Amino acid sequence: MSRKTTILHSETIRSYLKEIDMLPLIEKGFMALSNGLAVVPPVGELIFEKPKGETHIKYGYIKNEPYYIVKVASGFYDNEKIGLSSSQGLMLVFSQQTGQILAILLDDGHLTDTRTAVASMITMKHLATSNVNCVGIIGTGTQAQLQLDYLHLATDCKNIMIWGRDTSKAQAIKLKYEEFGFSVHVASTIKTLAEKSQVIITTTPSQIPLIFEGDVQAGTHITALGSDTENKIELSSEILKHCDILVVDSFAQSQTRGEVYQARKMNFIDESKVIELGQLIQNKSLGRTNDQQITIADLTGVAVQDIMIATAIFEHHKKYINEH
Amino acid sequence: MSRKTTILHSETIRSYLKEIDMLPLIEKGFMALSNGLAVVPPVGELIFEKPKGETHIKYGYIKNEPYYIVKVASGFYDNEKIGLSSSQGLMLVFSQQTGQILAILLDDGHLTDTRTAVASMITMKHLATSNVNCVGIIGTGTQAQLQLDYLHLATDCKNIMIWGRDTSKAQAIKLKYEEFGFSVHVASTIKTLAEKSQVIITTTPSQIPLIFEGDVQAGTHITALGSDTENKIELSSEILKHCDILVVDSFAQSQTRGEVYQARKMNFIDESKVIELGQLIQNKSLGRTNDQQITIADLTGVAVQDIMIATAIFEHHKKYINEH
Repeated sequence: MSRKTTILHSETIRSYLKEIDMLPLIEKGFMALSNGLAVVPPVGELIFEKPKGETHIKYGYIKNEPYYIVKVASGFYDNEKIGLSSSQGLMLVFSQQTGQILAILLDDGHLTDTRTAVASMITMKHLATSNVNCVGIIGTGTQAQLQLDYLHLATDCKNIMIWGRDTSKAQAIKLKYEEFGFSVHVASTIKTLAEKSQVIITTTPSQIPLIFEGDVQAGTHITALGSDTENKIELSSEILKHCDILVVDSFAQSQTRGEVYQARKMNFIDESKVIELGQLIQNKSLGRTNDQQITIADLTGVAVQDIMIATAIFEHHKKYINEH
Repeated sequence: MSRKTTILHSETIRSYLKEIDMLPLIEKGFMALSNGLAVVPPVGELIFEKPKGETHIKYGYIKNEPYYIVKVASGFYDNEKIGLSSSQGLMLVFSQQTGQILAILLDDGHLTDTRTAVASMITMKHLATSNVNCVGIIGTGTQAQLQLDYLHLATDCKNIMIWGRDTSKAQAIKLKYEEFGFSVHVASTIKTLAEKSQVIITTTPSQIPLIFEGDVQAGTHITALGSDTENKIELSSEILKHCDILVVDSFAQSQTRGEVYQARKMNFIDESKVIELGQLIQNKSLGRTNDQQITIADLTGVAVQDIMIATAIFEHHKKYINEH
């Protein structure tokens, strides 16, 4: 049977991604989660010490769909020293009918990075004000760049401020993306970035808060992407305490990881205020009602995103094979 | 990077297995587990209803070794109706240094079946009396046959009694294995089998007890392989209550699955009596002290077995490639 397993390498996967409109598919996944149609067990986790690394195993299925998905994605942050991406991984597509392995997507972590970027654009689409003149990006890694690659899904704004610990990396992103028609300013402090930006996206593996309450202007929307374990945090918990709208990608995961988890430990979370992204997508009345509200989306990454993107790639491949 | 991933298919894996002495390697894995050297998080699980199926995700690593392993193995029991093995799956070998996927072992579940059979032989080797004249096998599936394939690792006995719900399957195994020099008797009842056998191995996905206390003779060793979820049970819990030595493959997993889990729910388990297999392997004084004791090993399948067998296959492949 194993000879029938489709194996797709990174280049093929990247070419398919250009032909797929992922945003509505990922939205559909979040709605399935919030509507109880997704079976998504707790995330599996392995932590490594020498060198420091972490692996997440996310898996599950949507009922009455043909596949189930297992995704292995890791972050080994010393990889960059040897010229490797810190992000590694692959996705596996299995049959819900027989358990057979149907496809192996050797994406080197790119599908995880992509579905994360698309989820960020979904939060921006549903929560940002209508007057976005500047998008602030915290961090200069792969995910920071993907925010720019996918920004058109959520806004026409091409005016960017970027901040990173390593200014030379921020300068490199400026050079690269100004060639693509963006106007990119490298911020010297996060405070400056927050003053100018109507949308802030955090993309770091930080274990200490980077943005503080006084930094954030009325009307700002913040999407926090980086914190996905119990040790990571990017936003000072006071911001979550006082924000107007607080959205999580998964109620279940926000119990054990992410910004909401951190703020909940401080007793800063009004549980009645927390909305799941799949609810917001279906019910716009849960979202922003004026241009002064501060809104926050805390994304930890949910297996439904992996299910949707892996399914989309495999279906696209089957269609491609049939047509050629 | 993904082009460098080694992909091994079932035929290659089966040919390598013939050249590897797995028993001491799997023993080493159990010892690592009992000695606190293995990082083995709880088993991930997906349950399917239409058709009925289950998937287990086992993963982990042994400290200071080069790899970490993720294994996906499923049982879809309607598969046989369409000519497919109920057992499906694959194993993934990753680098502990970078998180990169190094090898994909498309074993269709065969490595899981094999490491289970080898673990069974380890328990027999350490717990059976020295006078084994007959080995009783309950069940007629893949695992029942693998017990015969690997029996030589634990005993010279080739005298077998087998019982299955479907007598024609038991007859087919008799025909097949008598050609390999076994003497196989098809038992009409489990009671008859238990009367004649000094070792009994249960290999079914039963959800009701199959063997009862009165059936078991003094001196018998029983290895229960089949029960690996919270719903499955093969041995009446009274047997566990009154047995002399009770061994589990993993203390942690016996809290949530297997025969010990079932008996513990009845308050039938004297916790001070429960031994972990990796302890027994290192300390023979924990084992049988006379030929009248009834001993039980409850195996639920532990990720260290997957770590050891996947590592062995990948290392064997690298050696093979270097030599050719």
